Amino acid sequence: MSIDVFAPAHKIAAQVRDGEVTAETVAEIFLARIARVNSVVNAFTDVTAQRALEQARGIDTARAAGKMLGPLAGVPFAAKNLFDIAGLPTKAGSKINRERAPAARDAVLIERLTAAGAVLLGGLNMGEYAYDFTGENAHDGPCRNPHDSARMAGGSSSGSGSATAAGLAPLSLGSDTNGSIRVPSSLCGIFGLKPTYGRLPRTRSFPFCDSLDHLGPFARDVTDLAMAYDLMQGGDAHDPACTQRPAEPVLPSLSQGTDGLRIAVAGGYFSTDGMPEAQAAVAAVAQGLGATRTLDLEGAGIARAAAFLITNSESAAFHLERLRQRADDFDPETRDRFLAGAMLPAAWYVQAQRARRWFHDEMMRVFEGVDLIIAPATPCPAPFVGQKTLELRGETVPLRPNLGLFTQPISCIGLPVAAVPVFGTGLPIGVQIIAAPWREDLCLRAAFALQQAGVCEARAPVLG
Amino acid sequence: MSIDVFAPAHKIAAQVRDGEVTAETVAEIFLARIARVNSVVNAFTDVTAQRALEQARGIDTARAAGKMLGPLAGVPFAAKNLFDIAGLPTKAGSKINRERAPAARDAVLIERLTAAGAVLLGGLNMGEYAYDFTGENAHDGPCRNPHDSARMAGGSSSGSGSATAAGLAPLSLGSDTNGSIRVPSSLCGIFGLKPTYGRLPRTRSFPFCDSLDHLGPFARDVTDLAMAYDLMQGGDAHDPACTQRPAEPVLPSLSQGTDGLRIAVAGGYFSTDGMPEAQAAVAAVAQGLGATRTLDLEGAGIARAAAFLITNSESAAFHLERLRQRADDFDPETRDRFLAGAMLPAAWYVQAQRARRWFHDEMMRVFEGVDLIIAPATPCPAPFVGQKTLELRGETVPLRPNLGLFTQPISCIGLPVAAVPVFGTGLPIGVQIIAAPWREDLCLRAAFALQQAGVCEARAPVLG
Repeated sequence: MSIDVFAPAHKIAAQVRDGEVTAETVAEIFLARIARVNSVVNAFTDVTAQRALEQARGIDTARAAGKMLGPLAGVPFAAKNLFDIAGLPTKAGSKINRERAPAARDAVLIERLTAAGAVLLGGLNMGEYAYDFTGENAHDGPCRNPHDSARMAGGSSSGSGSATAAGLAPLSLGSDTNGSIRVPSSLCGIFGLKPTYGRLPRTRSFPFCDSLDHLGPFARDVTDLAMAYDLMQGGDAHDPACTQRPAEPVLPSLSQGTDGLRIAVAGGYFSTDGMPEAQAAVAAVAQGLGATRTLDLEGAGIARAAAFLITNSESAAFHLERLRQRADDFDPETRDRFLAGAMLPAAWYVQAQRARRWFHDEMMRVFEGVDLIIAPATPCPAPFVGQKTLELRGETVPLRPNLGLFTQPISCIGLPVAAVPVFGTGLPIGVQIIAAPWREDLCLRAAFALQQAGVCEARAPVLG
Repeated sequence: MSIDVFAPAHKIAAQVRDGEVTAETVAEIFLARIARVNSVVNAFTDVTAQRALEQARGIDTARAAGKMLGPLAGVPFAAKNLFDIAGLPTKAGSKINRERAPAARDAVLIERLTAAGAVLLGGLNMGEYAYDFTGENAHDGPCRNPHDSARMAGGSSSGSGSATAAGLAPLSLGSDTNGSIRVPSSLCGIFGLKPTYGRLPRTRSFPFCDSLDHLGPFARDVTDLAMAYDLMQGGDAHDPACTQRPAEPVLPSLSQGTDGLRIAVAGGYFSTDGMPEAQAAVAAVAQGLGATRTLDLEGAGIARAAAFLITNSESAAFHLERLRQRADDFDPETRDRFLAGAMLPAAWYVQAQRARRWFHDEMMRVFEGVDLIIAPATPCPAPFVGQKTLELRGETVPLRPNLGLFTQPISCIGLPVAAVPVFGTGLPIGVQIIAAPWREDLCLRAAFALQQAGVCEARAPVLG
């Protein structure tokens, strides 16, 4: 009885269902792999081995008793450590939060995946309080890229990108405020979905910036991504931003292809001139989807500026007491940004919200003429851990904020995006497939078509 | 051919319709009265005599030709000078705005009343940029109370309250951000309606604070108030806050009475202990409506604090360039508040918006058990012009902000309110009749019942 740790989640579920392997064995195999590989990638900060084995044995018992298994029964997954995990303090990548009482109950999305039979393996490394694009963390050490452990995994959901790319969990959960699902998906070469703002409930996850926070799944396989997404859909009364919009499953239409969809490449602000890997990736995806049009998305720069100001203001408001009392206990890399946010004038925030509404309205007009927009996910493949600057369009710019150059304007107005991986000659890099609000189905259909065509595929890294 | 300048608007319209008086004569009578009385009350800053006479003659010609007249044909009205009036610069009570180009077109609400046959007599005095509760104005001089010209009319829609109370126009329009319809209604002893946030479009009016600005009518008669309101309903594409909610006319249900409505008096924060006139007025209205329950509206103080911060932040953002370039041209009374707003930290604004959502949700729960809430409109009747402090609950407090003590928490969450006047032994004072969002009909039904019962009636002041 064995399995391929790089097999898709739905295949592992089928093996468990068919009795080819027990859920307990699956859990043991992955726990053993984590014990071996995590010292290289530093993706897990907490391993919930006992819980995983107990749950797995429960699944095996249920199967033996002839009970119906959930669609993900026996599939290991893990969650960024800002999701509540019953019995653990919710770190959110910080030192301060380690003093919190253990969570009484799992986050809603963990509960939903668990109810579908998925087996939680633990909590994942992340940038402190999610204010990060690198995946470095002063308290837990940097999370590393499975394709080159000298390089970053990307943040802030670094552990999610790294663990799933490294074959430590075929599914993982992360959050995306300005790009924190799409950036690690890009740098780690896997698929990620940032759903429409308000789609998936954030109940019992630790917030960063309420009006921009999204939760979503990572996977190495598009069917897995769609399955996990479908199983997590549906409103929750405790997240006011999460509408009571009924679940709109995407799995039934996943293989419908992209014929008839109007697909354009984002130009202008999203131009990849001088970014050879990003340019090649966008070109490959555009060709794969038969997109020939280019769209100038005017206002994306303004939307990014608005996203900076809103993030900075809302997160500083949220952390104000901690900043007052415990500034020294913050990661130095996040502390200065939070402190700056605490001193921003309210008038700037008000203007930023205005700009955001304006860009939203502009984009709604754009979506009258187009179904999907292709844009780069990051300007470059994974930089080295510790790297501080980036050469961008002939200028040396700070690396950290510019990893979000292409993701920030999109999340600013809550659009759904699938990040899809392209492997060139070297490291992977991601591409964003962007749709109008609530059209995750289109993003995932395109991602599936690209996977089927072999344009976008996760690859197993060479690791221990 | 004559008319009573204190007759209800709908009666004047009937007289014009029936040929008892021409619209031109009506306009002439009111213009003559303005010429005589405005020097006392200082309610009008612009009189559009030529336009009024031309429109009135047009109505008379139409009638002579047997054409149908609009429901308000021949009824004079006037608008706070932040409404665009074609051909005039929109002052918004400021010196700076006098340099603006004349408006090309009337504000939407003026257009709608004009289309119904109402005849615009001019623009009305107001606190600078609507940031005011007193009706004093450094550029145009203080607007005065028709019931005692040594006293304030209340602001910021001072001219609207004063002109309608003084028999200079049976209908007027104003705006209410924190109480600017309800405060002058209260001090001038007339009826005012602050509709639900988003009900009446603000297109082509000069803003103060976008997320709190409401427009609405004033009248001495509840039927007039309801007619004007009904005629102004309906969305407008140029005001994004104004939903495309269809008109929901209130006139058909106006005389249905209040039997079966669950009506409570607001206690706690809204207690009128030590405010004898307000207490007597609330008691009279409660008795008139048969309300015996008292409700503690917890959180109203927090909502008021939130309204202060949001107003200050949004208005400073809006005026930022003017503050940078022309600070000396502001009214000194508003300048300091605007400048303070420009320096508020964004984190406070973010917290204020959070508090606002919280209080909104609290109040939605309250409205599950009650249909109407009775609260004082102001803590006192009209203070003297120039008065700076107020004795409130045993403390000497600044007068200006505290005139909005009872109105601010309500507009903060956009609830509809009718202000109804109570005349005790001396000056009038208003009471708020508050309903759940979109239930203006209930507010106005209660106001009508109170007028029918003689509890709330406007009275003609003794003036020139």
